[in-house]
Amino acid sequence: MLTVALPKGALLKDTIRLLQTVGLDFSAFLESDNRQLQISDPSNTAQALLVRAQDVPVYVEYGQAQLGVVGYDVLREKQPKVAHIADLKFGYCRLSVAVKQSSPYRSALELPPHGRVASKFIKCAAEYFEALDLPVEIVPLSGSVELGPITGMSEAIVDLVSSGRTLKENGLIETDVLFESTARLIANPLSYRLNSDDLHGWLDKVRSAILAKV
Amino acid sequence: MLTVALPKGALLKDTIRLLQTVGLDFSAFLESDNRQLQISDPSNTAQALLVRAQDVPVYVEYGQAQLGVVGYDVLREKQPKVAHIADLKFGYCRLSVAVKQSSPYRSALELPPHGRVASKFIKCAAEYFEALDLPVEIVPLSGSVELGPITGMSEAIVDLVSSGRTLKENGLIETDVLFESTARLIANPLSYRLNSDDLHGWLDKVRSAILAKV
Repeated sequence: MLTVALPKGALLKDTIRLLQTVGLDFSAFLESDNRQLQISDPSNTAQALLVRAQDVPVYVEYGQAQLGVVGYDVLREKQPKVAHIADLKFGYCRLSVAVKQSSPYRSALELPPHGRVASKFIKCAAEYFEALDLPVEIVPLSGSVELGPITGMSEAIVDLVSSGRTLKENGLIETDVLFESTARLIANPLSYRLNSDDLHGWLDKVRSAILAKV
Repeated sequence: MLTVALPKGALLKDTIRLLQTVGLDFSAFLESDNRQLQISDPSNTAQALLVRAQDVPVYVEYGQAQLGVVGYDVLREKQPKVAHIADLKFGYCRLSVAVKQSSPYRSALELPPHGRVASKFIKCAAEYFEALDLPVEIVPLSGSVELGPITGMSEAIVDLVSSGRTLKENGLIETDVLFESTARLIANPLSYRLNSDDLHGWLDKVRSAILAKV
């Protein structure tokens, strides 16, 4: 049976809506009292796993799910061995450098050498500053990255920005965009090659659904 | 001014209660509509940062907070450069190996060589199996680790257990305990040596409060 790994959080609603258009109903995950992490769709043609966004590529890479939906930001940071199938065109955000409004810096290149940059995206941030040839220390945080500059721990942050509200509320401004991100459909490479569980048929349906929406 | 890093989640209530007994009131963090991450206590003698448990040692290591409260499990996994000051005797849990009730395994040593172990505690898990001289593959997950054995992705998990309810609900049983964990008081090593902001005075008060409770 086809198994799809779905990401908890911001992308879940749109992901479930997309799968409904191809005939797979996992809306039970959206019920407020849902505690299940593994369900079958009512027609019993597929099942879904509800996992943290960053775990979606893990389940797909190991083949416990043939398909998964996850943000491009996670794929860039984790570099999992999965096949990138399609851009789903929702969940837009960008990974950006931000500094305090009151700081003298207005671009990443103006940051002081050996300054500090707080981020959940350690790899992406390190790569970006290496490419700029600017030696900085990346401070790994797992949440509320905006506290880095506020407490004076770091000169800047590298974090996801969607509406920009969190930055504004915390007196921060965006200076540089590392890359833009949207939700992506990914597949287990072996399942994709072997077309197991009629994977290609499902992918065609999803692709048509995306095209119909645009 | 003294700054204390407090962990979001399971340890927060007891941490705030402990600090209240030494005259620092950060109970504003417990109000259901609280959105602040940084507050001063009403007497303005200290401030507190509210951060993810695993970020507490980061703020303390970098000196943005002189003190912090965090589980021993986080200290074991992250190995931050902080001074371990006191065992606060609350927040008891243990890091354990668990397998499916229906599996043939009843101890870590019975697991098949080159089997898979899912965990959020990659370092602790790897060290444990290395010490057993059992080659396993650690599958890094960030949440709902119990899905590892349920979906067949891994033979076992290494995860925190407190009441054991999550394991039971998911048909898993605990086979080995890696170590036990409680909340710990940590300090920035330099602040501790320099006794900045009368750190030693505060630590004496906290130590007396712990002894009074036992």
